[in-house]
Amino acid sequence: MTYCVGILLNEGVVLASDSRTNAGIDRVSTFKKMHIYQQAGERFFALTTAGNLSLTQGVLSLVDEWLYSGDPDKDLWATESMFGAARIIGKAIREMHKVDDGYMMEAVDYSASIILTGQIKGGRLRLFLIYNAGNFIEAMGDTVYFQIGEVKYGKPILDRILTPESSLGDAVKCALISFDSTMRSNVSVGPPIDILLYRRDSMEKVFVDRLDEGDPYLQTIHEKWGSAILEAFNQISAQPDWDY
Amino acid sequence: MTYCVGILLNEGVVLASDSRTNAGIDRVSTFKKMHIYQQAGERFFALTTAGNLSLTQGVLSLVDEWLYSGDPDKDLWATESMFGAARIIGKAIREMHKVDDGYMMEAVDYSASIILTGQIKGGRLRLFLIYNAGNFIEAMGDTVYFQIGEVKYGKPILDRILTPESSLGDAVKCALISFDSTMRSNVSVGPPIDILLYRRDSMEKVFVDRLDEGDPYLQTIHEKWGSAILEAFNQISAQPDWDY
Repeated sequence: MTYCVGILLNEGVVLASDSRTNAGIDRVSTFKKMHIYQQAGERFFALTTAGNLSLTQGVLSLVDEWLYSGDPDKDLWATESMFGAARIIGKAIREMHKVDDGYMMEAVDYSASIILTGQIKGGRLRLFLIYNAGNFIEAMGDTVYFQIGEVKYGKPILDRILTPESSLGDAVKCALISFDSTMRSNVSVGPPIDILLYRRDSMEKVFVDRLDEGDPYLQTIHEKWGSAILEAFNQISAQPDWDY
Repeated sequence: MTYCVGILLNEGVVLASDSRTNAGIDRVSTFKKMHIYQQAGERFFALTTAGNLSLTQGVLSLVDEWLYSGDPDKDLWATESMFGAARIIGKAIREMHKVDDGYMMEAVDYSASIILTGQIKGGRLRLFLIYNAGNFIEAMGDTVYFQIGEVKYGKPILDRILTPESSLGDAVKCALISFDSTMRSNVSVGPPIDILLYRRDSMEKVFVDRLDEGDPYLQTIHEKWGSAILEAFNQISAQPDWDY
């Protein structure tokens, strides 16, 4: 399984992804699910992937092969907008399906979803959720985040905390609490966790870090959130009127 | 959709279920998903159902028809153990499938799952999760709860709070927080919420209540938990070392 979240804020964007991959419970391995394409000062793209690993790796290989082709419908360096970039990723998913679908057994879930964020000089910072069919939606208005993979365990905390006004630091903290809840409930989601922060309009500075299982901040989140929740729970009184 | 949770504690058992049913987003209605069978002082059973409504109603109708037959393999009044009671519910699911499966289109998810709890005089209070195939598992040791339906959003809080030593009052509070998170994230889960509390070995006293949307305790949980989470979140400092 996989868990990835992308958060679009006034201040910038936060992207986080786990790195556990499994083909059956007895074949667990570590693959990076976050990928960055950047021309400093000009354009920055980052994406995280969920789904069938051969499919998502294929998508990335296609996107790589298309770089420097100069074709704005295929080349991330040549596209003129984030909309165009999202279409390129969608096109790569569609190409993979065109070639492979006829050979896939029904038993295999040959599907994927991708979160894409980025900014091209002169354009807006945008966040997309790209579906398996290659179509996509964009975060805007009240929707400040997208999740892919094992999305449900970690959703309530995102809903309760995040607004467009949240700081990058708060968004990272919130994302890591969301990961903590998810990893606690689904062992097929696990560290290291890749984190990316990008300041809107910076066009060059992208902070990335990889948090291993023993990372002090991850540990702090894990322990402090557990005790903070317990404290919050104890603040609410039990129903006083019931006779049982 | 549906959300139900059953919690087995040293002190007794807590059962909670929502009551929203939908056949498509434009056909939403209210059905009680909690059902009690009781002979005061002698035996007490309670169950909550999730899944296809015609299937779960059929299961209950069969169980009702089998009452007073005197057949210990079918009659909840005649079975001698909770294991036997769980087998009766499983048998009713299997009977429904035997009769109906040939007529169900593939497009319809004709499946169900059921949480069963209860105690027969002289026996233990037990909690079962009965699957669509009629087989079942029992809560024991570290596993103090079962969920059915839309289980993921509300699972983290249960994992963080509940132990066998939790009080009935705390378990209700925890269950309602779990419902609050679930209802916030999935509109097809909704009030009224049916609540049942049973004290171990009481063999007669079963407290039940139905919490409507405007119920003051439900409102308190909703508001206080929201602000308590925010407070807990603010207690944890942002990652201080990162340069972004």
